[in-house]
Amino acid sequence: MKVVELSGGVGGGRMARGLQAVPSIDLTVVVNVGDDEDIHGLHVSTDLDTVTYTLAGVEGPDGWGRVGDTFVFNDELTRFGVDNRFRLGDLDLALNLFRTQALAAGKSLSAVTAEIVNSFDIRANVVPATDDSLRTEVKVERDGWIRFQEYFVMRANQDEVEELRYTGSETAHPAPGVLDAIATADVIVIAPSNPPLSIWPILAIDEIRHAIRSHQRVVAISPLFGGKAMKGPAHRVMASLGLPAGNAGVMEAYTGVIDTLVVDNQDADDARRLDGVDVMVTDTRIRETARARELAEEILAR
Amino acid sequence: MKVVELSGGVGGGRMARGLQAVPSIDLTVVVNVGDDEDIHGLHVSTDLDTVTYTLAGVEGPDGWGRVGDTFVFNDELTRFGVDNRFRLGDLDLALNLFRTQALAAGKSLSAVTAEIVNSFDIRANVVPATDDSLRTEVKVERDGWIRFQEYFVMRANQDEVEELRYTGSETAHPAPGVLDAIATADVIVIAPSNPPLSIWPILAIDEIRHAIRSHQRVVAISPLFGGKAMKGPAHRVMASLGLPAGNAGVMEAYTGVIDTLVVDNQDADDARRLDGVDVMVTDTRIRETARARELAEEILAR
Repeated sequence: MKVVELSGGVGGGRMARGLQAVPSIDLTVVVNVGDDEDIHGLHVSTDLDTVTYTLAGVEGPDGWGRVGDTFVFNDELTRFGVDNRFRLGDLDLALNLFRTQALAAGKSLSAVTAEIVNSFDIRANVVPATDDSLRTEVKVERDGWIRFQEYFVMRANQDEVEELRYTGSETAHPAPGVLDAIATADVIVIAPSNPPLSIWPILAIDEIRHAIRSHQRVVAISPLFGGKAMKGPAHRVMASLGLPAGNAGVMEAYTGVIDTLVVDNQDADDARRLDGVDVMVTDTRIRETARARELAEEILAR
Repeated sequence: MKVVELSGGVGGGRMARGLQAVPSIDLTVVVNVGDDEDIHGLHVSTDLDTVTYTLAGVEGPDGWGRVGDTFVFNDELTRFGVDNRFRLGDLDLALNLFRTQALAAGKSLSAVTAEIVNSFDIRANVVPATDDSLRTEVKVERDGWIRFQEYFVMRANQDEVEELRYTGSETAHPAPGVLDAIATADVIVIAPSNPPLSIWPILAIDEIRHAIRSHQRVVAISPLFGGKAMKGPAHRVMASLGLPAGNAGVMEAYTGVIDTLVVDNQDADDARRLDGVDVMVTDTRIRETARARELAEEILAR
């Protein structure tokens, strides 16, 4: 069975780990690159790395970075007055420097991602949505348009988001293999990621959006628990962009895209009011691989 | 009293620390940049950093790098198949990345060096010989011309050196302040560094060589102990370049440049045979700052 997952970072990585644990599945994870950022001259791809580390079982305790990482390098930057609020661990730095060097040598992001994934014990394919530059930018009241990581990390996602744009999406093409994987997939799974911040940047690429829209089976997992994201600003961002509260907002975020919406048991009441999509209510807490795998099997069996 | 030291790495850093410990001295250390290398896309300046770390008292146990540094980053590069024989510690990496970023932003090497030195507790001025590109290259039997760090670190300086060249030296200009410091110095001290590998690249810059040659008081400290370098390949390199053995070779390496040669007690016999320069025989083991300071005072009192 062939599965394509569209993924942001932490939630996407956990769902990918569950899907990867189902033996019969040929999994391709198509990952958001709108969060990619230049940090100290390094090409940092937060969502790609979170997915990779999570699939390898070496993710950090909060979902991002490497478990057991140290911050000797990052802390020392303070001496030189370098802004080090975007914390890069020493292990994580090795990956980021390897990627930066490979890109500088002319390799594509998808090619270097494949090399990185191969260096870990990972069965799934991990592919950036695009090898082209695509950057999520956030319009906030105080300063206008700012880059995603400035909003998310440096300002701890406290600003109200007035508008989003995905700079470069008009000219970006899907990375090699993405359209083939979608066309031949039995099911497309949209991860329980932040719809506007993590999934829309993938769907902002015309060819991917058309391929997903014309696919016969697209299942999204809601990132909400009791109407709120477990972590991160999904519900706040959706509200400020004018989407309805709760899973009605998730459904609207994916209008014309999904057939099935999976919502958590806590939102069973909310789910009863949804019209126009198949709604599946189950336990969507997937930090543990065992539960993530069960959820994957429930989705695929439906 | 104004002193200029011409310096390579470990021995130069230790001599600089001794000079810095003499309260009345205004010290400028002019440092070799022929060993500078691009490592993983970073601008690594081994001699500048060894001098800086030694002046700050935070140098590693073998003279290079930072004391107490960790190698989490460097070891992790193995996963990605990156050549990591040039070992960059995690603390050291912060400095190297800061410098690389500053250079990429258009700062000069001397300007960023001043910032780095200011971030530590250092009283001396530390200046690269030049802000221009100047790279020591080594001709070895097996492969012809190779870069200095390839010879020194990757091949553990085991090749016989057939020839040296300082690529870029013809067009390199002294960094700001170097010629002024030399012109106003009461004495020039040439550190107990490797003459062909550490000092000649500085003297290969025409304006510096002329300024040093026309200075009235230039004292070199021999790097030899019992005819051999305490560490490193100085005596082997000098022999393969056709220089006489022992301190006669050091004297010849500095023909027309120095007035005084300081040799170690172990080489008193050797020293007796030297003609044409003032020879001073004393204890030149300067790992300890106290002895380095005494040596500095002996030199300045002569």
